[in-house]
Amino acid sequence: MRPAVITPMVTPFNPDGSISLEMTESLISNMKKFRVDGAFPMGSTGVFPWITAEERLKFLQFVAENAGGMDLYAGVASPCVEDAIGMASRSEDMGYDFAVLPPPYYIKPGDEGLREYYSKILGSVDIKFLIYNIPQFTGYYIPFKVLENLAIQNSNFVGIKDSSGDIRYHERLLRLKTRAFSLYQGQDDLFLQSVLLGSDGGVCGTTNFAPYVVEMSRLVESGKLQDATSIQSEKINPMIDALKNDDYPSTYYYAFYKSINGNGGYRTPMTRPVNSSTHKIDELLRQV
Amino acid sequence: MRPAVITPMVTPFNPDGSISLEMTESLISNMKKFRVDGAFPMGSTGVFPWITAEERLKFLQFVAENAGGMDLYAGVASPCVEDAIGMASRSEDMGYDFAVLPPPYYIKPGDEGLREYYSKILGSVDIKFLIYNIPQFTGYYIPFKVLENLAIQNSNFVGIKDSSGDIRYHERLLRLKTRAFSLYQGQDDLFLQSVLLGSDGGVCGTTNFAPYVVEMSRLVESGKLQDATSIQSEKINPMIDALKNDDYPSTYYYAFYKSINGNGGYRTPMTRPVNSSTHKIDELLRQV
Amino acid sequence: MRPAVITPMVTPFNPDGSISLEMTESLISNMKKFRVDGAFPMGSTGVFPWITAEERLKFLQFVAENAGGMDLYAGVASPCVEDAIGMASRSEDMGYDFAVLPPPYYIKPGDEGLREYYSKILGSVDIKFLIYNIPQFTGYYIPFKVLENLAIQNSNFVGIKDSSGDIRYHERLLRLKTRAFSLYQGQDDLFLQSVLLGSDGGVCGTTNFAPYVVEMSRLVESGKLQDATSIQSEKINPMIDALKNDDYPSTYYYAFYKSINGNGGYRTPMTRPVNSSTHKIDELLRQV
Amino acid sequence: MRPAVITPMVTPFNPDGSISLEMTESLISNMKKFRVDGAFPMGSTGVFPWITAEERLKFLQFVAENAGGMDLYAGVASPCVEDAIGMASRSEDMGYDFAVLPPPYYIKPGDEGLREYYSKILGSVDIKFLIYNIPQFTGYYIPFKVLENLAIQNSNFVGIKDSSGDIRYHERLLRLKTRAFSLYQGQDDLFLQSVLLGSDGGVCGTTNFAPYVVEMSRLVESGKLQDATSIQSEKINPMIDALKNDDYPSTYYYAFYKSINGNGGYRTPMTRPVNSSTHKIDELLRQV
Repeated sequence: MRPAVITPMVTPFNPDGSISLEMTESLISNMKKFRVDGAFPMGSTGVFPWITAEERLKFLQFVAENAGGMDLYAGVASPCVEDAIGMASRSEDMGYDFAVLPPPYYIKPGDEGLREYYSKILGSVDIKFLIYNIPQFTGYYIPFKVLENLAIQNSNFVGIKDSSGDIRYHERLLRLKTRAFSLYQGQDDLFLQSVLLGSDGGVCGTTNFAPYVVEMSRLVESGKLQDATSIQSEKINPMIDALKNDDYPSTYYYAFYKSINGNGGYRTPMTRPVNSSTHKIDELLRQV
Repeated sequence: MRPAVITPMVTPFNPDGSISLEMTESLISNMKKFRVDGAFPMGSTGVFPWITAEERLKFLQFVAENAGGMDLYAGVASPCVEDAIGMASRSEDMGYDFAVLPPPYYIKPGDEGLREYYSKILGSVDIKFLIYNIPQFTGYYIPFKVLENLAIQNSNFVGIKDSSGDIRYHERLLRLKTRAFSLYQGQDDLFLQSVLLGSDGGVCGTTNFAPYVVEMSRLVESGKLQDATSIQSEKINPMIDALKNDDYPSTYYYAFYKSINGNGGYRTPMTRPVNSSTHKIDELLRQV
Repeated sequence: MRPAVITPMVTPFNPDGSISLEMTESLISNMKKFRVDGAFPMGSTGVFPWITAEERLKFLQFVAENAGGMDLYAGVASPCVEDAIGMASRSEDMGYDFAVLPPPYYIKPGDEGLREYYSKILGSVDIKFLIYNIPQFTGYYIPFKVLENLAIQNSNFVGIKDSSGDIRYHERLLRLKTRAFSLYQGQDDLFLQSVLLGSDGGVCGTTNFAPYVVEMSRLVESGKLQDATSIQSEKINPMIDALKNDDYPSTYYYAFYKSINGNGGYRTPMTRPVNSSTHKIDELLRQV
Repeated sequence: MRPAVITPMVTPFNPDGSISLEMTESLISNMKKFRVDGAFPMGSTGVFPWITAEERLKFLQFVAENAGGMDLYAGVASPCVEDAIGMASRSEDMGYDFAVLPPPYYIKPGDEGLREYYSKILGSVDIKFLIYNIPQFTGYYIPFKVLENLAIQNSNFVGIKDSSGDIRYHERLLRLKTRAFSLYQGQDDLFLQSVLLGSDGGVCGTTNFAPYVVEMSRLVESGKLQDATSIQSEKINPMIDALKNDDYPSTYYYAFYKSINGNGGYRTPMTRPVNSSTHKIDELLRQV
C-alpha cells in the first residue's frame, strides 16, 4: 500500500501579518500538483498559537472549501478542554475527516490528567482524532500507557502523528498497537525509515513547496527502495538541514513564498530568515 | 524597605470544574489576613491555559472588584499578539495596576521575534508590564540582550518576575539593570536569598494558604535576618518540598482548599493529589 | 555485502569482583558459535572505567590470544593523551587490528582541543582507529567538523562507532563521508535501519548472549528484508526493552551469565539487577 | 566563625604541556599571599583526567611539601574502586588531611552501587573524605538518600563539596544534616549566599589569582555583610562571567598565568582561550 503523505500547511501571511487567502489558494495548488493525500491546516507549521480563534476557524473553513479531493485534518490544539472541544466540533461541521490534537502544553499534566483530557474531548465529538506527539514543543512525550488506555476506550482515536524525531519511540508505537490506529511520521527526514518499519505515512512540511516525499511514497509503493533512498538522502535530508539553519518555522514560510514567487509576510513573533540562512534554501529550491 | 509579597492566586474550582467565586472570596480573605501586598490572578498557579478567554476575563473582573487595597497584577499570557493586547487592554480598564506577560510558548521564537512580540504589545497598551521568565513552561530563558533592549525602549516595562529557580540568572538580572525595573522572585524557597541580593520582593504560591513569606518580609524590614532565615529553612522550604511531591499546581490547590475547609475541585487536566502526597502537606498545614 | 557484527564484550567477573578468564573463554565460545565478525573488549559494556590499567592490559592480551579468526578491536579509552597512546600502542603489539577511542569525558574540551586530542593519539600509533561517539556517557556529540578534519588529516582514522541512538546524527555521518571511513551502529535496536541506510555494521551488546543480530545480518545479505525486520521487531527490540529495565550494563552481565549458566559477579559500582528486572530477561532468554 | 576558603588549584603547565613545579611554587605563593585556608590539588580545575597517575602522585607530593600551614585536600577521583583507594592511601601517607572524591563518571551507577562504591573506599582508608557533587561532569546528582546512608555509616565522611551551582540542592544538603558533615560551595559566584545559608565555606577557583573570596570571608566574619555583598556583585560575579567566555578551565589557567606573568601552557585537550575571551579577563585582572 502506498504510504499517505499529508501536508502540515503553512498559514500564508501578507507582509502586514494578516492571513492571505490568495496565497493559500496557491498553496493548495502546490499540494494538488504534488498529489499529496491530505491537507492539515492549523498545525505547528501553521503557527496556530500565534493566531486568534476567529482567524483559525476562518482559515479552517477556507481550506475545507478549497482542498476538495484531499483528506482533511484540522488542527484543534488547545490546553483548554472546552476550547479544544469547540474547535473539534466546528471542524467536524465544516467537513473535516480528522481532528489533530497535541497534549496540553505550558503546564505538564500528570498521566491520569492527560488521560482525562483526551477522554473528555474524544468523548464529546464524533470526529476521528489523531493524537499528536511533539515533545519539542510540549516538553514531554505522551506515555505509552496513556496511549494504550485511550486506544482501548476511545473508538474515535484512529491515529498518532509522531513528530518527536525519536525513531525508537516511533518504533515502539508500532509495537504497542493494542488496536488498529494509524501511525504517521512528522519528520520528513525520517519518512522512509518509518514507512519501512511499518508506519502508515508522513505529515511532511517540505510538501508545502516540494514534491519529494510524495515521489518517495510512490517509489515505495512500486518497490523501488533504492530510488526512494536516493531521494531521501540526496533531496530531502539536505533540504531539512538547510531549513534548520534558522528559526522554525520561518524557513518553511520562506521556501513556500519562494516557490510561488509570493510576497509573503511573517507574523510576529516570527521573523524573516536572515540572508545567510536563505542562500542554501534558494540553491536547493532551484533543483526542485 | 519591606520587600513586596504578591500572591499568584489559585483559581478556585467547584468539584465539577467550574470556577467558584465563593471560594475566591475566601482566598482573598486569606490574602488580606496574611497582609500580602498584591493579588495576581490568572498566572501559572491560576492555570490560565486550561481556562476559556471568557472565564479569564470574568475572574479578573471579580478579583479587581474584591481585592481592594492590594496592588493588582493581571495575568495576560498568550502567544498570540492580538490576544495578549486584548487581555492587557481589558485588564487596564478593570483597574489593574500591572499586566504580567510570559514570552510565547509552544514554538520558541528567535531573539528578534521575541523583542518584536513584547514591543508590539507594550506599545499598544498603557498599562505597566511585568515580563515573566519561566523556562520550565516556555522551554527557554528570556535572553538578557532582549530584556536590555526592551528596558531601553519601553517605559511601561517596569518589572520582571523570574520563576526560573536559577539564582545566577536572577542575580545577573539585578546587575544588568540598564534602567529602573523591579525584580521579583517567583520561587518561595528562594525568597530570602533573592531579597538579600537586592530583589524587590516575591510572587509566592504559599501565600494562598500560609503567611510565612509575609512574615519573612517583615523580619527583613526590621533587620531580623536570623529569624527570617529560620522561617525560610524551617517553615517554607519543607513546605515547598512537600508541595513538589505531586503534579504542579495540584498540591497548591489541595493546600488552599484545606486551609479554608473547602470542597474544591480540580479542572482537567489537573487531578487531585494522591493520598501519599497529601499526608505531608496536611501535617505541615496543621502548624500554620 | 554482509554487514559486520562486532561484540562489545562484557568483562566476566567472579562473585568477588575479580576477572574470570574461565568465563571469558565461555564468552568467546558464545561469539564463535554465533559467528560474530569482531571482538571488542574493554568498551563501555566491558566497564573499562571500573578496571585498573593492569587488568585492562591483561584482559586485552587474553582476548587477543583466544579470539583467533575474529577481527580484534581494543578499547583504549582515556581522557589522558599519554595513557591512550600507551594503551593503543600495547594493543597494536598484542595483534589488535583496531583501537576504539571515545573523546575525553568528565571535562568537555572545545572543538580545537578535541581535534588536537585525536590528532596527537592517531599520529603516535600506527594502529587503525575507530572513533566512538557516545554522548550518553561523555556528555556531548563529536562535532561533524572535527570528524571531517580528522578524516582528511589522519589516514589511520578508519571508522566511527556511533552509539548515540540518534538516527539523524547517524545518517548525517553517512552523508559527510569526506573520505572512506566505515560506520558502525552501536545500538542493537537500530541495527537494521542503519545498515539499510548504508552503515557497515553494528557493535551489538546482545551478541554476548544471543545470535539475533548476526542472523539479521545474514538475512540482509541474502536480501530477505522481511525476515530481518521480523527479527528486529520481535526478537531484538523486546530484548533491548527488557535490558533497559535496570542499570546499564548490569542486565547485559546478567543475561550473559545466564546464557552460560555461570555464577558471575558484578564489580562495584555495578550491582546485580533486581528480580523484577530479570524476570522478563529470563523469559526472553528461554526463546533464544 | 569565618567561612573557610579552599583553592582548587590549577596544575601549572609549561608551554610543552609538562607540569611546571616552578609555576606551582608561584601558585602556592599566591595562595599564601591571599591567605586561603586550604590547598586542593588534582580536582577538576587541576584537570586530573588529563594527567597520568604517576604525575598526579608527584604533584600531590610537591604540594604537600610546599603548602605548609594550609589544610591539605587531595583530589583522588577515579571511577575504579581500587585506583581511588590507592590514591587516597598514598595521599594519607603524604600528609593530606582530606581526600576529595566525586562519584563514578562516564557510566552512571545505580543508587546501591554508588553507596557500595563509597563504602568500600571510605572503609579502606582512614583519611577523612569530602564527597564531591559535580553533575556537570558526572552527569548526575548524588542522591540525598545515598548521602544520608553514608553519613550514618562512615565516620570518615566529613564533608561535601557541592559544585552543582544549584542553590536549592545546596540548601537541602544543609537541612538533611543527619550528622555533622561540613558543606562547601564549589562555585565562587554562590559563595556569599551559601555561607549565609549555613555553608562552612567555599572551594573557589578565582583564589588561584585573586583574593576576593578570602576578603569576603573576612567581611562575613566581622559582620560587614553589605561590603561582602559589594565584592560578590562587583568583583567576583563579573569575573566569573568573564571566565565563562571560553572553555572551562582554560580561562582559569590563562588568568593564573597572567597573575604571575608566567609563560604557561595548556595540556591537550585544553587550548589557550581565544583573544576575544581574554580581553575582558585582562581588564578585570588589572583591577585586582
